[in-house]
Amino acid sequence: MKTTNLIALTVGLFCVSQVLAQEPMKMKPEMTEFWDPEVTVVTPGAQPSDAPSDATVLFDGTPGSLTANWVGRDGNAPKWNVADGCVTVARGTGVIQTKEKFGDVQLHIEWRTPAEVIGKSQGRGNSGIFLQERYELQVLDNYNNRTYRNGQAGSIYKQYAPLVNVCKKPGEWQTYDIIYTAPRFKEDGTLFTPARFTVLQNGVLVQNNVQLLGPTEYIGIPEYKAHGNGSLILQDHGNPVSYRNIWIRKL
Amino acid sequence: MKTTNLIALTVGLFCVSQVLAQEPMKMKPEMTEFWDPEVTVVTPGAQPSDAPSDATVLFDGTPGSLTANWVGRDGNAPKWNVADGCVTVARGTGVIQTKEKFGDVQLHIEWRTPAEVIGKSQGRGNSGIFLQERYELQVLDNYNNRTYRNGQAGSIYKQYAPLVNVCKKPGEWQTYDIIYTAPRFKEDGTLFTPARFTVLQNGVLVQNNVQLLGPTEYIGIPEYKAHGNGSLILQDHGNPVSYRNIWIRKL
Amino acid sequence: MKTTNLIALTVGLFCVSQVLAQEPMKMKPEMTEFWDPEVTVVTPGAQPSDAPSDATVLFDGTPGSLTANWVGRDGNAPKWNVADGCVTVARGTGVIQTKEKFGDVQLHIEWRTPAEVIGKSQGRGNSGIFLQERYELQVLDNYNNRTYRNGQAGSIYKQYAPLVNVCKKPGEWQTYDIIYTAPRFKEDGTLFTPARFTVLQNGVLVQNNVQLLGPTEYIGIPEYKAHGNGSLILQDHGNPVSYRNIWIRKL
Amino acid sequence: MKTTNLIALTVGLFCVSQVLAQEPMKMKPEMTEFWDPEVTVVTPGAQPSDAPSDATVLFDGTPGSLTANWVGRDGNAPKWNVADGCVTVARGTGVIQTKEKFGDVQLHIEWRTPAEVIGKSQGRGNSGIFLQERYELQVLDNYNNRTYRNGQAGSIYKQYAPLVNVCKKPGEWQTYDIIYTAPRFKEDGTLFTPARFTVLQNGVLVQNNVQLLGPTEYIGIPEYKAHGNGSLILQDHGNPVSYRNIWIRKL
Repeated sequence: MKTTNLIALTVGLFCVSQVLAQEPMKMKPEMTEFWDPEVTVVTPGAQPSDAPSDATVLFDGTPGSLTANWVGRDGNAPKWNVADGCVTVARGTGVIQTKEKFGDVQLHIEWRTPAEVIGKSQGRGNSGIFLQERYELQVLDNYNNRTYRNGQAGSIYKQYAPLVNVCKKPGEWQTYDIIYTAPRFKEDGTLFTPARFTVLQNGVLVQNNVQLLGPTEYIGIPEYKAHGNGSLILQDHGNPVSYRNIWIRKL
Repeated sequence: MKTTNLIALTVGLFCVSQVLAQEPMKMKPEMTEFWDPEVTVVTPGAQPSDAPSDATVLFDGTPGSLTANWVGRDGNAPKWNVADGCVTVARGTGVIQTKEKFGDVQLHIEWRTPAEVIGKSQGRGNSGIFLQERYELQVLDNYNNRTYRNGQAGSIYKQYAPLVNVCKKPGEWQTYDIIYTAPRFKEDGTLFTPARFTVLQNGVLVQNNVQLLGPTEYIGIPEYKAHGNGSLILQDHGNPVSYRNIWIRKL
Repeated sequence: MKTTNLIALTVGLFCVSQVLAQEPMKMKPEMTEFWDPEVTVVTPGAQPSDAPSDATVLFDGTPGSLTANWVGRDGNAPKWNVADGCVTVARGTGVIQTKEKFGDVQLHIEWRTPAEVIGKSQGRGNSGIFLQERYELQVLDNYNNRTYRNGQAGSIYKQYAPLVNVCKKPGEWQTYDIIYTAPRFKEDGTLFTPARFTVLQNGVLVQNNVQLLGPTEYIGIPEYKAHGNGSLILQDHGNPVSYRNIWIRKL
Repeated sequence: MKTTNLIALTVGLFCVSQVLAQEPMKMKPEMTEFWDPEVTVVTPGAQPSDAPSDATVLFDGTPGSLTANWVGRDGNAPKWNVADGCVTVARGTGVIQTKEKFGDVQLHIEWRTPAEVIGKSQGRGNSGIFLQERYELQVLDNYNNRTYRNGQAGSIYKQYAPLVNVCKKPGEWQTYDIIYTAPRFKEDGTLFTPARFTVLQNGVLVQNNVQLLGPTEYIGIPEYKAHGNGSLILQDHGNPVSYRNIWIRKL
């Protein structure tokens, strides 16, 4: 066969294969551009730690914002101490919890363990943040203070150790930025999807979308029970841990 | 049967059912406390936006850190402009990309669209951040600038609109805190798990662990192709967008 | 130092490290044994394809079971043909749909494309099974009949091609065993979790827990809209496809 | 203003709003039709329980297929008994395991507990199927035999109870159709995605894509350790449980 014929044949085969390899019909850029509904505009805070315009400020440093948004377990006004723009656990007065109940949320909260170091392991600067009254993100002074890995600051208590120990020194303010997805339940009360946490501590990822095994349990294996929205709870574990700049956004 | 017998029988049945309801054996607290391995200690930055001790600082504001960590698409030194502690797109010089290639990462990056407003929709302050060279988080000036919802700032371009539009004004610095999970592929090249993004813009959640449909496509429907680690790329879209304080942590 | 001292020191260090490596307290087998509530007893069918005792039989081969459980789109009795223990699409009479509406289900259904081969690609033995009135598992004769991969038998139509083409010959009965998870929506109507399908065709896995992009669309990109339970629908696509032995279990 | 003007204005406003509501550009059906690559053709078995053409038949009822595909834990030929087309546990001879190691698979396996009922709870007809040598799907005679719910037939042993107890009578053959996804690990050995099981027992869903907490543990809380592919193991628990028609497909 002459060279030109060979070329013709090759081109012909190539065309056939082009025909057989059926690409989907070519689209235009505008076909993947969705304009509506318009995305809701929110004004951010001056700093990332500041509440944006759509947040509920749960505590702004004033006694008034504490009593407006929180109660003790008995339903009365919280007995914790407000001073210097923060609220501090008053030992033995019990937890404080939000009047409002929440589901999925973004939560910003700042906390400080006592500058004076007393105790060790779980005994040093212990408190905790419970989402929906059940799922605890641990607050603890773990600066040069070893404890069980799934019980230290940044842990989902007794379920997930933090990815890193990024604690500041005692007496320094620390931040948690929390993305929380509430569990869902089926009509028969069994679990559909578990609770999930993503947590940044001092700007560093410590929990990456972990799926909880159930409510926080000090003893034994967690087990889900169906529930609806729940309060945010701050724990009185007997140590004068302080909190400030608490804001929450419903997701 | 006499009433007393009936009561006795009822109580008896009740006791039997109590015996039958076998609770798991009671545990002790220490059984759910895991100490080892010790969680790695990381020193946080002074502010959440500051690089922690385990981060790679990709740009610290100096020309030296730009040339040390980035190249143009041609492999040569980046031609973007470094001044006043930030690096600015030099129109027409093309993208810049990190020398190092990454998989799962936490990325902090700050960006600023031009104070002088020119253009509209996609024409105003357009740039972009590509994870692994393929998956774009949009950078755009959407302050009073409507565009398609899945193409505005905070969007995973043409895939997921941001949850809210939390843009600052033109000329103001904004932050992205990004948690990125690389896709995984099976041995035959098909997708095992998709790429995922969680993004906070100016401290506000705009992407909540979304699962990407494939690499970013300007035209058409995305489709995954297997790949390994990839560079972080900043886009030259012709507008003088600036970046600063870029740090990354391998997850 | 004398050798004996060295040994003593080594042993000492070893003991110290043993003390430091704190294992969680030893458990007993009974601590992870959960007895209650008792798992519900279900009587299986004689063969895996036969309805178990907790299934709703939607069609047992008799005209009575068709009219008891199904209606046409207009709400009247179905006009499809029942004969020889199966029901066959009557061209142009429209879909049939269950009176009952469902959420999460396991569905067993058997289908047969016409023994006489007419047409090609989408024109041959075309029908479809819609879960919740919206999400289509394709029914088509793909025995030696090429069509677009995401539109062939076993595909989630225009979203997911089947893992393999495991079609039987025209005129032979085939089985689908379907595990379907309904999508969930948030209170604002946005998507919480997508619809998911696992499908066995003729005993072979063709869909492995795929997450749907939205309702089935012949044209364009799917988009979720919030909805509640929905009917199971069988499609009239103009071809005399037959169905039999249809049973469903609520999950 | 006159009525006609009002109408004109209203119409005008309506048109404006129509213009503002920018729908994405209309697509054509062919744009979402993907033809390549062609889906691999597999020939199904005559019945859904029969091996399809792409399966590896691990045991077909003959002694030859047992010795060809399986060994004891010591690496020697299995000492279990082959008769009447099935293989039966020979008490005290230990497990048998496949020579080939697997990752993600679809597995079909049939099993029978002894017709003669001896013992109760975990003592009756006990065996087990371990995927990748670590993750056990329980085999047990739970026909009128109560045991702990997370240890009965169809359970992922000590992790997930079956959705229903769909056991056949002692001496009757039962089927498991298993879809197994192997866990993936990160480079540092930590877990990326957990092992997952979907299981049909006698055609009825008993496990719906559950995510394992770690390898099966008789005592204590499971914990993942990184591993590669692993053998399929059948357990010798001292009871003469029989198996037949075992085939597996790599996913």
